[in-house]
Parts: sequence; structure tokens; C-alpha cells
Amino acid sequence: MTTTTSSGNRAVAYLGPGKVEVQNIDYPTFELKDGPGVNPANVGRKVEHGVVLKLVATNICGSDQHMVRGRTTAPPNLVLGHEITGEIVEKGRDVEFLEVGDLVSVPFNIACGRCRNCKERKTGICLNVNPDRPGSAYGYVDMGGWVGGQAEYVLVPYADFNCLRFPDKDQAMEKILDLTMLSDIFPTGFHGCVSAGVGVGSTVYVAGAGPVGLAAAVGAQLLGAAVVIVGDLNAERLERARSFGCETVDVSKGDPKDQIEQILGVPEVDCGVDAVGFEARGHGSGASGEAPATVLNSLMEITAAGGALGIPGLYVTGDPGGVDEAAKKGSLSLDLGTGWAKSLAFTTGQCPVMKYHRGLMMAILHDKVQIAKAVGATAISLDEAPEAYAKFDAGAPQKFVIDPHGMIPR
Amino acid sequence: MTTTTSSGNRAVAYLGPGKVEVQNIDYPTFELKDGPGVNPANVGRKVEHGVVLKLVATNICGSDQHMVRGRTTAPPNLVLGHEITGEIVEKGRDVEFLEVGDLVSVPFNIACGRCRNCKERKTGICLNVNPDRPGSAYGYVDMGGWVGGQAEYVLVPYADFNCLRFPDKDQAMEKILDLTMLSDIFPTGFHGCVSAGVGVGSTVYVAGAGPVGLAAAVGAQLLGAAVVIVGDLNAERLERARSFGCETVDVSKGDPKDQIEQILGVPEVDCGVDAVGFEARGHGSGASGEAPATVLNSLMEITAAGGALGIPGLYVTGDPGGVDEAAKKGSLSLDLGTGWAKSLAFTTGQCPVMKYHRGLMMAILHDKVQIAKAVGATAISLDEAPEAYAKFDAGAPQKFVIDPHGMIPR
Amino acid sequence: MTTTTSSGNRAVAYLGPGKVEVQNIDYPTFELKDGPGVNPANVGRKVEHGVVLKLVATNICGSDQHMVRGRTTAPPNLVLGHEITGEIVEKGRDVEFLEVGDLVSVPFNIACGRCRNCKERKTGICLNVNPDRPGSAYGYVDMGGWVGGQAEYVLVPYADFNCLRFPDKDQAMEKILDLTMLSDIFPTGFHGCVSAGVGVGSTVYVAGAGPVGLAAAVGAQLLGAAVVIVGDLNAERLERARSFGCETVDVSKGDPKDQIEQILGVPEVDCGVDAVGFEARGHGSGASGEAPATVLNSLMEITAAGGALGIPGLYVTGDPGGVDEAAKKGSLSLDLGTGWAKSLAFTTGQCPVMKYHRGLMMAILHDKVQIAKAVGATAISLDEAPEAYAKFDAGAPQKFVIDPHGMIPR
Amino acid sequence: MTTTTSSGNRAVAYLGPGKVEVQNIDYPTFELKDGPGVNPANVGRKVEHGVVLKLVATNICGSDQHMVRGRTTAPPNLVLGHEITGEIVEKGRDVEFLEVGDLVSVPFNIACGRCRNCKERKTGICLNVNPDRPGSAYGYVDMGGWVGGQAEYVLVPYADFNCLRFPDKDQAMEKILDLTMLSDIFPTGFHGCVSAGVGVGSTVYVAGAGPVGLAAAVGAQLLGAAVVIVGDLNAERLERARSFGCETVDVSKGDPKDQIEQILGVPEVDCGVDAVGFEARGHGSGASGEAPATVLNSLMEITAAGGALGIPGLYVTGDPGGVDEAAKKGSLSLDLGTGWAKSLAFTTGQCPVMKYHRGLMMAILHDKVQIAKAVGATAISLDEAPEAYAKFDAGAPQKFVIDPHGMIPR
Repeated sequence: MTTTTSSGNRAVAYLGPGKVEVQNIDYPTFELKDGPGVNPANVGRKVEHGVVLKLVATNICGSDQHMVRGRTTAPPNLVLGHEITGEIVEKGRDVEFLEVGDLVSVPFNIACGRCRNCKERKTGICLNVNPDRPGSAYGYVDMGGWVGGQAEYVLVPYADFNCLRFPDKDQAMEKILDLTMLSDIFPTGFHGCVSAGVGVGSTVYVAGAGPVGLAAAVGAQLLGAAVVIVGDLNAERLERARSFGCETVDVSKGDPKDQIEQILGVPEVDCGVDAVGFEARGHGSGASGEAPATVLNSLMEITAAGGALGIPGLYVTGDPGGVDEAAKKGSLSLDLGTGWAKSLAFTTGQCPVMKYHRGLMMAILHDKVQIAKAVGATAISLDEAPEAYAKFDAGAPQKFVIDPHGMIPR
Repeated sequence: MTTTTSSGNRAVAYLGPGKVEVQNIDYPTFELKDGPGVNPANVGRKVEHGVVLKLVATNICGSDQHMVRGRTTAPPNLVLGHEITGEIVEKGRDVEFLEVGDLVSVPFNIACGRCRNCKERKTGICLNVNPDRPGSAYGYVDMGGWVGGQAEYVLVPYADFNCLRFPDKDQAMEKILDLTMLSDIFPTGFHGCVSAGVGVGSTVYVAGAGPVGLAAAVGAQLLGAAVVIVGDLNAERLERARSFGCETVDVSKGDPKDQIEQILGVPEVDCGVDAVGFEARGHGSGASGEAPATVLNSLMEITAAGGALGIPGLYVTGDPGGVDEAAKKGSLSLDLGTGWAKSLAFTTGQCPVMKYHRGLMMAILHDKVQIAKAVGATAISLDEAPEAYAKFDAGAPQKFVIDPHGMIPR
Repeated sequence: MTTTTSSGNRAVAYLGPGKVEVQNIDYPTFELKDGPGVNPANVGRKVEHGVVLKLVATNICGSDQHMVRGRTTAPPNLVLGHEITGEIVEKGRDVEFLEVGDLVSVPFNIACGRCRNCKERKTGICLNVNPDRPGSAYGYVDMGGWVGGQAEYVLVPYADFNCLRFPDKDQAMEKILDLTMLSDIFPTGFHGCVSAGVGVGSTVYVAGAGPVGLAAAVGAQLLGAAVVIVGDLNAERLERARSFGCETVDVSKGDPKDQIEQILGVPEVDCGVDAVGFEARGHGSGASGEAPATVLNSLMEITAAGGALGIPGLYVTGDPGGVDEAAKKGSLSLDLGTGWAKSLAFTTGQCPVMKYHRGLMMAILHDKVQIAKAVGATAISLDEAPEAYAKFDAGAPQKFVIDPHGMIPR
Repeated sequence: MTTTTSSGNRAVAYLGPGKVEVQNIDYPTFELKDGPGVNPANVGRKVEHGVVLKLVATNICGSDQHMVRGRTTAPPNLVLGHEITGEIVEKGRDVEFLEVGDLVSVPFNIACGRCRNCKERKTGICLNVNPDRPGSAYGYVDMGGWVGGQAEYVLVPYADFNCLRFPDKDQAMEKILDLTMLSDIFPTGFHGCVSAGVGVGSTVYVAGAGPVGLAAAVGAQLLGAAVVIVGDLNAERLERARSFGCETVDVSKGDPKDQIEQILGVPEVDCGVDAVGFEARGHGSGASGEAPATVLNSLMEITAAGGALGIPGLYVTGDPGGVDEAAKKGSLSLDLGTGWAKSLAFTTGQCPVMKYHRGLMMAILHDKVQIAKAVGATAISLDEAPEAYAKFDAGAPQKFVIDPHGMIPR
């Protein structure tokens, strides 16, 4: 039932702060072997429910940057990559509803499909896949040790549950730069909007114009928002937001509140999305350096009473590079009094991708949305990955899509 | 159409830190007149949509204590009281669906019934009643200046919208100590549970065994919770929680987590309710003094991944008595990294009482719940109010119900 | 505070089956007077909470046609019209948050804003406005007797609650043909979609390409549907549906199921909307005459298991023109076994317009939707109304907007 | 990894209208073999994801009666039983999170845990388990052919997904008569309530006092209903309803509406639950014979405007014993006009047990509910099953729990 495939594999690995390289690694088998970052309790785990994918597209993500910047405890040689789209080249004996040859999108959160949380659609906090804590991902520190997918081949466990099969392979390849965003950023941005209560007619402020912020902006439009305002201090990224109909706020030029008032006539929005996370910087021209609570405090100020904040931006429990002791342990000085007075609600955490990817796939396949264009999807080879990491870190208004087998038309 | 009534009125007023007294004040008319704490923009406001109530029951609330302890900017002579149940003795010309003689419960949040938020059931943040900000209440600092109801008579604006009429007056008088809790604490505690996601079979931790905490515990039981655990450091209040079937945690004896594990076998609950607010104290025997973020940080630790926190406990934007500069402006050092890793959701703010009071009334009238007994409802005269304030502040496990006209059977 | 206005008033009245005419009627005062179709219990009712509107736009609705076709017990001289947009020219003494000169949209369902249902956002079944039963409307048989708005002037009760004020009058006049759809068909179609579970990526079948069906199709697009299929037997109306990107099914050419399969590859959709109601006709070339259960039975067949049906199309409790005894009393022979096997859910009833009109207004004002164009909005004078009724009844693919004061640019 | 077990197996089989008997059948293996009622497309299906259970409790259900009465196309020798609780005695190689010896409850709906519907918690309409249509069950006609569980041993497919493990086996055995209701009727009745909108303070009418109706009544109480009214014409079953605090309506004594008015003071309830289904009988003393639309039409009449109907009672697509041609194909003459005028919503279909069983288990284990007592749980041996079928059919107010291995204390 399986196809013979090459036994080699090349992948992008983290070496140390600021350094990644392409390495030769093992071709996947249906077992999780020991390696950098693999949780000991997961070593030797059988994965007969898995498939081996030949990667068609695998993207570099802002959350990879946290590791590469040395802001985590990721060990050297950890293979990166959790945004995975590929073709099935082998399947484990327990896989029942997928076939070799299927082209699938894989949620970045690995989920067993059998625990209480998975049954409740909370696949971002699966109880069975990461021995350390609820929630898991490919190629990420403290997430169980599942080998990353910025590679030629990757193992996807619980494949029947996790994989989203594209109904028509040829059609999918034509839209592959859009569909590759289903593994993480499109659902993640969309989840930020949904949890911020975005609906038809909403006014929305998205903090951050990186790929997740832009995806959130697209998601807000898809949900029928009346006005979507994106804030950042990177002029090129703001330009990209304007390119698909967003209003923008340059946070380096002062308080978002005033700029929002100029746009809307009122200094408040219905819904706030934090697409920045813990590496936030201060607002205004005088501000410099990190100010991890800035985005959330700003969102509490500019979100109208009765509104909600979606917080897909990552906040961590430990940050070796935190600006102070509080930041190092993931503590933030939040103006909760302000939020409370306005009866705000806050939703945090990893997006449970599976809740959204099928609907977003349908929207892509039926031409309702152009996410690739919005985020500046740019296909590169595996060997170009280290350079792309550097460019992305420097603020390039692009989303880099690694194409390890040269399958994506340029 | 109106009944002749006495032109006198006596009420409980705040004098200064630690001091309240019963004063003679004006009998209400259908206009909001100037007075202590009245927002200038509200002075002279016509209230033809209002009713004058003869108070049957009006309770002392923990949030009154914040003012009385001098933790707010409340001016001297502010008339207290936002937990109001009474009989209509006069009605304004625009009142259409209520009659003189009706016995009604009044939500503590004053709402116009005509603004966007009221139409969306967000009556806790009505846009039209408080000129300062969304949200209003009787007898409370910065809430618009509506005269408090710890009095013989009170004016209730937008009466058709705000009042909940009891269907049978005699039946209601028999259960008046229960029904009086509909104006605030029962819905408030219940809202905390609803927003924490409490449902049939949930395990719930309620931080705080004051009246709101106990009401939350009762609410959790009514919602079908499997286990309700209440934490406090006041032994008498914990005893009360046990009296109606709750488990308890004495936070003076160490980390709630360990005690929860002894009760449930696991150190986590599905749902967390903060019924303490900004005047929280540290946990453990060595702890002393206020630690305003303690409750929320503890709840983030003990609420399981995928859970939610309901936060009816009050957090303020300004606290003259705050332990440090951050606290003085309502800033808290929160372990958001922990919350984020667990995908927790947080709901803050005043309870929109109207969303819940009718259903809870039905549960009381049909004997499904004994809230008065659970919270230790204790009827007192108006003149006993100052003493009751002091007892309550000292931690008495009672909920004091002022009975200004001696109508409640003892 | 009020503007001087003419004391005359002209309006469209129902005379008998197939006949309407423009009549002189009384200029509104703040009282509901006796007249054709006025519920005796409502005669003399004071409406100090009302405003008098100068109509700017007032549309002819498909549900008016039920009366005009003689399919109801509407009495002669009943003044028609429940789709009302206008400028406030007088306000009652109890109106607090509106001003003379405001331009407002009025939901077709009259609601008090003070009863249990209104407080729960169920304004389509207000308990206080129609003495006969929950739910009321302007100019409609058995709906309380409120005078219709296909007129120069109309009285709108509970104005603070009911009216949606446009934020900028000039901007609103530019989009008036879109905004006039907020009083009924746009929210009604949208409600059909919402209750059918339409979301991002859904496939949707809308039965009926009349104005409500087209509005539902637009609503589905706004909600992010991947594919919207509209079925009808009127070629011109289907052409209109295609004009804004819908797929179409010509039900005169056979079973919708087969045509859906050709479009989607599967014979089922996620969501079904019935925008036809009780005057449905049979499907297929051989079918003729009414078959009131056809649409619902067809929707149960083509909606996938787990889906939902939104049923904004009107079903009545009594139909003098029903095809048989069952139809005459509003009974339908429904294939509930089929629906049950598929776990379908069904939502019926008048749209509670207030739940949706503000968001849809924002979408219109910010150019997210072109509802006027989609439904073929066509402005006409009051005197052209009778002719428009006839054209509409004959199946013209237009939505007629009466412009009684010549204020709409042609 | 597996325990040696007896190779014999005895089970209750349907022989023909009115006849069941205990037969010797094959001991389960991890493959679905051909047999009475097995869908050809399922013959030979591998079930390595399954477990073999030794039945501890397996109940006779009202829906079994439809088959036994000859109201379906069930073939002779079909093994009955879909209410399954048991101990794992063998597990397939792909089972990862269960162990031999675990005591588990099994939802009656078989679900793969991997299809779109299962991922959306719609396990009642799993797409992968029944080749004929969405939705499957053990021991039921047209449900895929999975062998029934009124037996000594049964095979449970997709065990990691389907089984609910009881946390403590000894504790579970003490409450086994309650816990056995988790496989079907308790969640089914509860689902009827949830989909009817039952919440704290609701008034509820449950049509039918059979086991599902009584379970619905218990469920309504657990959800906080203020008043639960149960209607039936069987005096003993009504007596049982009264035994745990319900009000009752004897539908043989006339219109439920009048009796409801006597109980509540109004002739309407907030929520209606149909726990009868297609074999409904007419109301009133003169009524006789089946009237399949009676219950639904009655519920539309007595449910207040804005309410909802939960319809767990079974309606079929084909009924050889239907009273007329319409009934034979599952068509009902429904007063939809009445329902529409009241804006009612309707939810049909098999209960997705997995959505509810864990929470209800917690409520049982923590003594919040006594479902066994409410429904009259009565343990019997396998050999007593035929007699119990007859008694149940005759209206015994009992729920028969087959105890094939004599493990339940009497």
C-alpha cells in the first residue's frame, strides 16, 4: 500500500541564537526516535496511525523566530517547521481514510483525536501528544519533540484525524500558496478575530502587521467586518495591509487611539486582536525596547466597552531574554482595572486549527479570499531558508514558503 | 394614578473612611437633583420613565465596603445602596407596564433599554445613564450619581425596562430574603459561573466565600456542577460554604492547588471564579497584606487547560489605597504566559443582572434554590446599618438585608 | 422642538383581492386611532414614546402581496407598508435619544423594548404591542393595527428603542437605496442564513429568488459562504442572482438535487434557506399549482446531515386561499422522517430585525455590500405604487422603493 | 496484551414481530463479519481499533421496541442492543489509551472520530461507519450492521474515541444502574432539553413518560428548570414522574394546554421536548389509535413564542406499519403555520451521546442526580430479556437492565 521513496531527508535546524542551517536528517519512520528536543517520554513512541508526507510547502513562522532569536530554551539541532502541507507517500497500518497520493494540509497543533480536549474541538491542548503539558506542535521547543517539517519529508501522527485532504489535487496545486496558509497563520489570525467577536459590521483593530496580523485582517474581512485597522511600526508591512483594503495605524507616530479616532470618528473599535505577543515594543516615537504589556494595555484602552480581545499572539511562561524578572517568567503588568470597567473578555492560546481549516479551505478554493497575496507569500527553496529567516527577522513584508521539492510554480 | 406617600426619607450615607450614618434626605421626585457624587451632566435630568419605590429590602454589598474603607474617591454624604427590592408607590407618566403596588426587584446596574449595549443585553455598560463612562449603578462613586437605595424610598429610572415584577406579592413576601438577592449578588455570582463555563458535571473553584462567592457556589450547583470548591481564609465563611454541600480550601493553609488535588484527585478544576477582586490577600500562612494579583494568578494555575475564568470580583481603574503605584492605577502583575499556554479565556466586568434575574427568580419561586440561607441573609433595621457595615467588614459570615419599613418577618 | 409639517397624508391602501390605491389618510398623531384592521384593544393607545416620520423610502414587500392576493383576512382600506425609512419630523414627549431631523431606519417588527421577549432580543415576538398574539408590524393584518408606512408620514412607536439612526445624513442619502433594505429584507434574508448556520466556507442553497431570497444570497456572501446557490423558476430573477456571483438552479427544470450535484460535485449543501413560504409551487416541468410543503421537503432532502434550515419565508395559521383543508389551516405534509434521520434543525418566524440592522448598516456604509443592486432596487413615486404591486406580482425582478417626497435621486 | 476469554457468546435476537429470543452467536473478533442486517459494504471490515467488552449492563430501549413491534424492516436474527456498558477483555492493536480491565460506557452511536461530522462533535451522524447514510448504532436495522450488545460480549469499534472510561471501577460498580444510562437515554433526554433551550428557571413540558421522557425530566431538573411537567397516558409512568418532583399531565384526560394552565397559571411553557416520536397516539378520552403528528402539533401549541422544541423522539423515513400512506413514508401533517407565528425552533435527530456523557457521568459520580431510580432501573438476567421486552411493551414503568454475567448486586 506504500510507495517506495528516497531514504534521505534534508531539513532546517536551529543551531543557536541567530543561526539556522539545512542539515541531513533521518527519513521518517513510524516511530518517534530520540533527537534534539524530543521528550524522553515520547522516545520510541509507535506512530502506526501516522503518514509520511513529502512536503509541498512548509512556511517559516514568526513563532519560529522566537526560538531562532534565542528567546526560548530550544536545544541546538532542533529541526524547525510546523506549517506543513504535503503529499502522502507512506501510511501507517492504522490509517484508514487517507491514501498515498493525497495532498493534505496539516494543523500545526498535533492532536490525538481521542482525548477529552480533542473531542471538545480543543485540539490546541491535546492531552496525549506532549508529555509535558497540554498542547503540542511539530518542530517546537517543549512541545513534545515531534520532528519539524521544514524538510523534504515529515511524519504526521494521527493522520486520519489531523490531515485535511484537498478534494482536487490539480486545483489545489494552483492555489498552493494560499492553501499552505491553512496549516497555521490563516486559522490563527481568523481565530483571533472569532474570539474577538468579529462579525458582520464590526470595527476591528489588529495589533501587528506581520503574517499573523495580516491573516487576521483578511479573516476579519471574510467575517464581514466593516472596517479593519492594522497597527504596526513597519512601514512596508502597513503598506501591505493597505493593499487589500485595510486602514492602518503607525504606532511609531503615537497613540493608536488618536489615529483610530481619525479613521472612525470615535477612538474605539468593537474588537481587538493581539497579533504581536510577548515581544511587543512600546508605542510612540520616544519609545524604544521591548514593553511586553504594551499591546494588551493598548487594546484594553481602544476596545469599546462590551468588546473582546482575541490574543493569538504568543505569550510564554519562560523567556530567557525578557526585559526584566517579571518578563522572564511571563508576567505582565496589565491594566486590568481598565479592562474590567469595560466588561472586556479575553481569549488566549494556540489556535485550534482544525476548528477552522476546512471552512477556510472552502473559501480559498471558491475564490472568496486571497490570503497568499495579502501576506506576501514567497516561495523559496530549502537552501534559501536560512537567508529567509534573516530577512523575515529584519521585517521583510513577506511570508516565506519553503518548497523543498521544487513543486510550486514561480 | 399615584398613591400619597410620606414626604420624608431616611438613608445610609458614607461620611468618610470607616464611617456611615443614617441621614434624612429628600424624598425622590422624577428628576435627578444635585447632590454628593451626582455627575453635573446628570443634574436636572428628567425621570418621567421612573418609579418611586418603597424599599422592602436593600442589602449591604461588598462593593459598598470598597467605598467605606476609603478605597475610592467617593465624596462624603454619598447615599449608599444598589441592591434594591421594593414596592412601587408612584410612577412617572411614561411608565406603561407597571402599576403602583407592584413588588419589584431592581438590577443594580441602571440601564436605559434604548442604547446599543442595552439592546445587546449588555445592561452593565449602558451608554446613556452615566455621563462619565459606560455603566451605572445606584449609590456608587463615579457611576452617574443616582441616589442610593439603602433608604426608605428610592427613584428607579427607566422602570419599565429595569424592574422585574414578582408575579404574586404574597408569595414573594414569603421568600423575600431570597428574592432580595436578585438585585445583585445572586446574578453576579451566577454570571461568574456562566462566564467560567460552568455546566452539568463541571468541577469549579470559587475564590472567595463572601456573599458573592457563596452566591457563585450556589449558582454553580444550580448549573449542575459536579463539585464546587470554595476558597477563603475566613473559617466561618468556609463553614457556611460547607453547609450547603461545597468543598472548601483554606487559603491561609497553603496553596489551593494541593488542597484541590486532595479533593478531586487532580490539582485542577474545569472552571475558575474570582469573587474577590482587587483587595485580594496573599495565600499561605506566611502571607500578609494585599497582593492584588494573587487570586487571578492562582486561578490561572489551578484552572485546567481549555478552561475559563469568570471574574465578577471588582477591579478598579484607580485605587487611592493601592499597595504600590501599579495597584493605585489598577495595574496587576499577571502570569499571562501561564494562562496563554493553557488557552484560558477571561471574562470581566459588572454582571448584566437583567440577563439572569428572571430565571433565577423562577428558580427561587419554585424552590429550586435557597440562596438566602446559603449567604446568611440577616434582616436588620435601617438604624442597624452602620453596625452591620462594621460587622461585615470584620468578616461576619452574613449578608445584611436592610428592612427600612419593618416589612420582613423575623 | 418640532418642525412644521403638512397636515395631509397620502398612503397606499388595500382595497380587495388584486386592488390597491393611493388614498388620503389622517396625518399621524401620538395616539393609535380606530381604522381598518386596528385591534380594538389598541384603539386610543397613547404613543408619547413615538415619532412621526416623513418617509424617505418605503418598500413594497412580498408579504404585502399575500394580502393583496387575497390570501389573508385583511380588511379593505388597510394602509399597507412595513418597510420604513424616514426623517423625524415630530417626537413625542417621552422620546429622549432622537432628534427632529434624524434620518432613521425602522424595523418592520414593532417592539416595546420592555417585555421579556424584547429584553431577550426577540423583538419579532414582542408581547406588548399586538393584543392578539406576540409579534407586530406596521400595515399588516392581525398585527395590531399599526398604520402602514407606504405613505407620506407614519407614526413609529417606542421610537428610542426601534429606530436606527444613520450617523451621517448626507452619506446616508447617497446610499439610501441600500439602507432602505435594512427595515426588512436584508435582515430577514440574513437571519435566514444565520439560522441556517451559514459561516465562512459554507455551501448554501436559497430557495426563492425574490427580494428576500436575493437578500439571503447577499447575506450568505457577507457571512463568508464559499458557494451560494439560488433556486427559482423565474428566469429573470435567477439572472439577477447570477449577476452578483451566485450559482442558480431552475426548479422548473427538475429536481434541485441534481442541479446542485452538477455545481458542487455532491448533491447536498451545508445550509438551506426557505425564502419562499407557504405560496410555494411544485418543482419540475410537470408541476403546476401550489404545493405548500415542496420547498421545505426539498430543503430537507438537499441539506446535508447535521445542517440547518433557516425559514424566513412566511407560513400562516390561516389561508383562505389554501389548496386544500390542511393548507387552509396552515398544516403541511412534511417529510420529518427524512429531516430527523439527518439531525436537521429548523428555525422559523419573523426576523428580529434589531438583532442585525446595525451591523448590516455598517457593512453598507463601509461599502462591503451592494444590496440595492442585488435586489434590483427601483425608486418610484407613491402614485406609481399600484402599478408596481402588479409588476411585482407578475414576477418583475425588482424591489420597488416608494419615494413619497421625491427625495431619492434617480 | 489480551486476556483469554470464553469463546462462547449469548445474545438477544429479533425473530419477527413480537418475538425475541436468546441465541448463541459468535464471540467477537476484530472484524465485522456477515450476518443478519450487516451492510454488505461493511462485511469483512477490519476493526483493529476496537475492543471486546464483557457486558456489565446493557439496557432494553424503546427504540428496540420499534423493531420488535415489526415497525421496521429489521431482518430475523438481528442481534439487538445498543445501550452498552462493560469491561474491556481484549483490545485491538491500534487501541492506545485504554487497557484491558477498564470499565467503560459506550455511546449508542458508533463514530469514527475522524470524519468531518465527528470532528464537529456530531457523532450521531458519523460519515464513515454506516455505508448507507450518516449515523450508525449497534444492533439496529439500517445502521450499518454492527452486532448488538444485549449479549455477553460485544465488539466496540474506534474504542479510543468512543469509550468513556469510569475513573474508579469499584465506585462505578456501586452506581452501575445509574451509569448504564449514559449509553443512551440519559444523554438522549438531556439533549432533548438542551436543544429545547432548557436553562435555569425554565418551564418545561416533556411529552412522554417512558424512559427517555423521564430521563429528559431528570435532565431538565439538572439544568435548573423551575418546573418540569411530564405528559403521558400511562398512569404508572406518570406516577414515576411525580416521584422525583415533576408535575404531570394525563393526556388521556384532555388537552395538555388546559392542564398546563392549571399548573403554571399560563397555558404555555418555555421549552418543549418530544420524547414520544412517530408512534404517538391521539390526546383526549375519545382519541384512539396512532396519530403521528399529535405530539409535535401539541408541542407547537403549548410552547411559548420564542421557545424551542427538542425532538429526541424517533421519526423514521419508512414505517411499514404506518396508519396511512403519508405515515408509511415518514410524512406528518404539521401545523407549521402555528410554529412559524411563534418563531419556534426545532432540533431533531439522534443524540450525539459523546457531547454529554462525560458531564453526566460526573454528575452521577458526585451524587447530583439519581437517574436509575427516576426511570425505574431493574436488573434482569439475559434469559429474562424476552419477558422484559413484553413487559416494557405493555407499559411497565421500568427500564430493564440486562446483566449478562450476574455482576450487578440486586
